[in-house]
Amino acid sequence: MRNIKFVISYDGTRYAGWQFQTNALSVQETIEAALKKIIGGSVKLKGAGRTDSGVHARYQVANFHTDSKLPLEKIKNALNSRLPKDILINSAEEVRRTFNSQRCARSKYYRYAVTTSYFVDPFIRHFVARFSYPLNINAMRRAAAQLVGRHDFKAFQASGSKEKDTIRTIEKIRIEKKGDLVYINVWADGFLYNMVRTISGTLLEIGRGKLPESVISDILKKKARSMAGPTAPAKGLCLMKVEY
Amino acid sequence: MRNIKFVISYDGTRYAGWQFQTNALSVQETIEAALKKIIGGSVKLKGAGRTDSGVHARYQVANFHTDSKLPLEKIKNALNSRLPKDILINSAEEVRRTFNSQRCARSKYYRYAVTTSYFVDPFIRHFVARFSYPLNINAMRRAAAQLVGRHDFKAFQASGSKEKDTIRTIEKIRIEKKGDLVYINVWADGFLYNMVRTISGTLLEIGRGKLPESVISDILKKKARSMAGPTAPAKGLCLMKVEY
Repeated sequence: MRNIKFVISYDGTRYAGWQFQTNALSVQETIEAALKKIIGGSVKLKGAGRTDSGVHARYQVANFHTDSKLPLEKIKNALNSRLPKDILINSAEEVRRTFNSQRCARSKYYRYAVTTSYFVDPFIRHFVARFSYPLNINAMRRAAAQLVGRHDFKAFQASGSKEKDTIRTIEKIRIEKKGDLVYINVWADGFLYNMVRTISGTLLEIGRGKLPESVISDILKKKARSMAGPTAPAKGLCLMKVEY
Repeated sequence: MRNIKFVISYDGTRYAGWQFQTNALSVQETIEAALKKIIGGSVKLKGAGRTDSGVHARYQVANFHTDSKLPLEKIKNALNSRLPKDILINSAEEVRRTFNSQRCARSKYYRYAVTTSYFVDPFIRHFVARFSYPLNINAMRRAAAQLVGRHDFKAFQASGSKEKDTIRTIEKIRIEKKGDLVYINVWADGFLYNMVRTISGTLLEIGRGKLPESVISDILKKKARSMAGPTAPAKGLCLMKVEY
């Protein structure tokens, strides 16, 4: 049996996230349906990151097992021909039998994009969130530095989350400003549910001066979700890379 | 009576072009309808460039006359609040009574964008045309140089066009390559109907080696639309700037 790994981009605007859902269209289901028509049988695609409803990916990784003998390029091209234009298979590669896109991921990189304009550039409206306040980028950078390292990120996940192991390592956070756009780039060995969006929501509140820089170490210490900022909107988030 | 000038961006994907049409949604009509609700009365918005169905603008200019005393910022903000997210008023300015966005335009800059990838990056799918052939960019540049200057561009317009004065001056053509993307940037004192798309279609055929570089001066000499390449698809075209 072959194990095939895809690198996938998608504009998540139309989708209820990566993962299969009963009553809504997911990216996973869309690709699986197209794949079944090409290689036949049942296909179970395993994604590296469960991107939420409206979240995008420039580099999602997914793998599946198949008995099909079709050449990789054929599978990739036939799939791209069938898929809607908001999903693209960038590459297809045969990997060792034990490779699992989710469990084998060593590091992931997410980018959160906001614009400080009150009205958003029509050309990027689906890919940036609006946060129209002046931002103190240096304060955000100093606050972000406190998040780097191995910490219990219990407070930086969706409230009501049932994940037991909430310890993760943030390798790096880089905050960039380009005109009206601010990017919060986060690299970690793994992410809790809504972690980047909660971190971004908190850093943005710090940037506009509504929360003090010191709040980060307090939140980490007290593990209190209620002390953190709001969950920033889905459309600003993009999965940029998965490393193995 | 005040004369107000707007600079406007739009994602033209959903629209049947700038200009009002009876049976289809235009950008002009969309803005006029919103404007009427804000300043009352009837409003006639004059656009600098008649962008076609599916063509985009980063910098379209339009003006209108009104008796309204509303401050410019109020008009702009109220309009942006009412407009769909694919149209944005970037600025509003009061200009001299005789200013006409179309007749006073001294120069316009259009960009045509193509990707040479067979499958298109989902994030830019509405803004680039696909032309999946290897392109000889230097041949395209040499061919483009023959278009620069004052010429009769009769052959580089939509066939069946009734325009009598087909002499225009192309000030500059710059062809850029960035990875899979190729941009054809054209500055001229005015454009005929479909002129940039016909020029782009011809330069692309030259780039892939289907037409010789010398074809440009032949077409200009013989004024034969049939010798030129096909009209490149609308979605790759964007009005980038209007100068006065």
